[in-house]
This record gives sequence, structure tokens and C-alpha cells, in this order.
Amino acid sequence: MKKYPLLTIAKNPSAIILANGDFPVHPLPIALLTNTEYVVCCDGATDEFVSKGRIPVAIVGDGDSLSKLNKKQFAHILHSIPDQETNDLTKAFNYCLQQNKMDLLILGATGKREDHTLGNISLLADYMDQADVEMVTDYGVFTPISEDSEFESYLGQQVSIFNLSDADMSQEGLQYTLPPLKQWWQGTLNASLSDRFIIHTSGKAIIFRAY
Amino acid sequence: MKKYPLLTIAKNPSAIILANGDFPVHPLPIALLTNTEYVVCCDGATDEFVSKGRIPVAIVGDGDSLSKLNKKQFAHILHSIPDQETNDLTKAFNYCLQQNKMDLLILGATGKREDHTLGNISLLADYMDQADVEMVTDYGVFTPISEDSEFESYLGQQVSIFNLSDADMSQEGLQYTLPPLKQWWQGTLNASLSDRFIIHTSGKAIIFRAY
Repeated sequence: MKKYPLLTIAKNPSAIILANGDFPVHPLPIALLTNTEYVVCCDGATDEFVSKGRIPVAIVGDGDSLSKLNKKQFAHILHSIPDQETNDLTKAFNYCLQQNKMDLLILGATGKREDHTLGNISLLADYMDQADVEMVTDYGVFTPISEDSEFESYLGQQVSIFNLSDADMSQEGLQYTLPPLKQWWQGTLNASLSDRFIIHTSGKAIIFRAY
Repeated sequence: MKKYPLLTIAKNPSAIILANGDFPVHPLPIALLTNTEYVVCCDGATDEFVSKGRIPVAIVGDGDSLSKLNKKQFAHILHSIPDQETNDLTKAFNYCLQQNKMDLLILGATGKREDHTLGNISLLADYMDQADVEMVTDYGVFTPISEDSEFESYLGQQVSIFNLSDADMSQEGLQYTLPPLKQWWQGTLNASLSDRFIIHTSGKAIIFRAY
């Protein structure tokens, strides 16, 4: 059974993707950004990252969301990928795969436009087929799964489960049994009963553990 | 065919539900809040609403998220509904129905925890069976539909489409044809080509029009 530890500042991902949403303010994503050398920015995230004294390894996007100064200064690491079928987050993800970075954290992918937030979260279910990946927000961590999975947790941790398939799901170690999760809200507002819980599924799902 | 005008400050809903997420900052939801007398607060939204000099018609929730002062001051309008199967937004929605308020806007339902944002947006698909309802955020408007629908729009308006059923969908007046919308991200990042667009569907879907 695949196991997912609680995310801590000890995590050492091979790369962080910083997306176009709200720049992180929670101490955990801030610390992860500080500790990780290999950061790829979606272009809309670059100006704020640079303003904090950092330089990304690569900037992915058409460069339209960059300041003129940064667009010029970082032209050598700007990877413009024209493809209307994918968004900047997927372009940055694909760039990381090309660089053989297979243990990824995505930050800054929520906040601002809610349709982008929904889209970005759902992309985890595609990305998981190609790399180990979790999304870190100011409120918790989204983890995509496609098989029985064990999550490290703590008593009372708030947990939400989004079923992306028609597969039946069940749990061990959570407060409420899982109804058929036909709608997004039906798996929200659960809570952990101890230092771990297990999700049983044969389809794709995304698990949210709040801090 | 059902028609959905662009939301403006001229809208006169029978009630606004103010939920527990980020308090609105965009001028449109702020103006709607100002112009609407009948506002029902989820309890977590009350303190900020009151701090702006307003008094809700009703406060729905267990009162745990209220300041001591407001809990005492507004005890006479606090409707505590113990039900672990529904969240505060649904309790507030049901309260409005009981008061025969059938043309509703939901504000403050996004921001903060992303799992709550996802849950709240998806609840629109349930609510639409019982009332006319749209969700207004700082970035745009979510509208639930379950049949062919025409949307007022403008050239270049950003549009995202979330298919909540297995029904095939198609569009007139948008930039990109709709693929089979099996995943949330697949309907995002579209745009209107003129002053209206049409969504064809026989299943439930949620349409987002950005401002």
C-alpha cells in the first residue's frame, strides 16, 4: 500500500513548480520554497518570486505576464511553449519531466480565479501518471491517488476526499463513512481519528489534508 | 431556452447568503451586498459583516465562529441547526427556502480552504433544483444549468465550463470547441466571441463567467 507522510519542511522535492495563483503565505510552503534550489516558475509567478531575491531555474509560459525588466533579464531561462491545449502549469510540469525531475511539489496554484483553482487541482490526477506530485496551498496539501493508500495524519486533522472516478471508495480511520461520492461536496468535512488513515479505491481520487 | 444576463448592480435578488470564505472585495459583490436588505450570514461571516455596520436578517450555524459579543447581541436571530450531513452554506440555503426566498445570490463562498471552495461550488448543482441561484466571487460568477442555456457575455470574456454529468456538451459562440469534459480542467480557459454564447447540455453543469 502506498504511504503518504505528512508534509514537513524536511521534504526535499526534486523540483518545485510555482504557479500563477496566490503567492504562498503559509510558513510551510514558504519554507519549502526557501529550502529548494530547483524552482520552475509559471511566468505569472516570476515577478513576485524575483522580488523576494530568488531566481528560478526556468520560467515557462509566453512571457506576457512578466515585467519588461524581468523578461529581458531572464530571457535566457524563459521557455516559451505555444500550445493552446495546455495551461502554464502543465507546460511547467512537462518541462520538469524533460529535466528528469520526478518528485514534484506544486505551489501557488490556488487563489485568484476559482476556475483556475479547480482546473489546477484536477490536473493532479493526470500528473500522477507521470511523476510523484502533491499540491501545497496555504491551507493544506492535495494528494492524488489511484489505489489503496495510507496517509499519515493526526487526531482531528480535517480531511476531504474528491472521487474522480465511478469507483466505490471506503476509509479506515476517518470520522465519517464515505457515501457514494458522486458530487464534490460529498467527501468534504471529514476528520482523522488518529495518526493515520487509509483510503480504499481502485479509481482516481484527490485527498486534501488541512494543516 | 433559459437565459442568463450578465450580473450587474441592478440585480435585485430576494436574498444574499454570505458564506464563511473570504469576505468580498470586488466592487460588484460589495455593491450587491450594499443594495440588498435581506442578507443571511453563515455564522463565520457575521463578525466581518457586522463590523461594516450591517445587521443580517438571520445567522445560520452553531454560533461557534461568532465573537462572544455578537453571539450575545444577535442571539435572537441565530438559527442553530445541528446536522452533520450538511455544511453551513446548505443550512443557510435551506433557511432562505423556508422564508420563501427563491432568487438567491451566494457571496463569500470561496477563498480560504480550497476543499470548502470546491464543495461550495458543487453545491450549486443541488441548489438549482430548488431555487434560482448564482455564486458571485471576486473574479466572476458561477451559474448552474441543466438544459440548453444562453448567456449574455462580451467579446473576449473568459469562460469555464464544468460538466457534472456524463452528458455530451456543445457550445455556440465560444472560441474553443468542447472536448468530452471528463475532467474539470478540460472546460477551462475558453472565451466568448460576442455578446452571448450558448451551452447545449442535457445534464448538470456549472458555467463560470469571469468579470
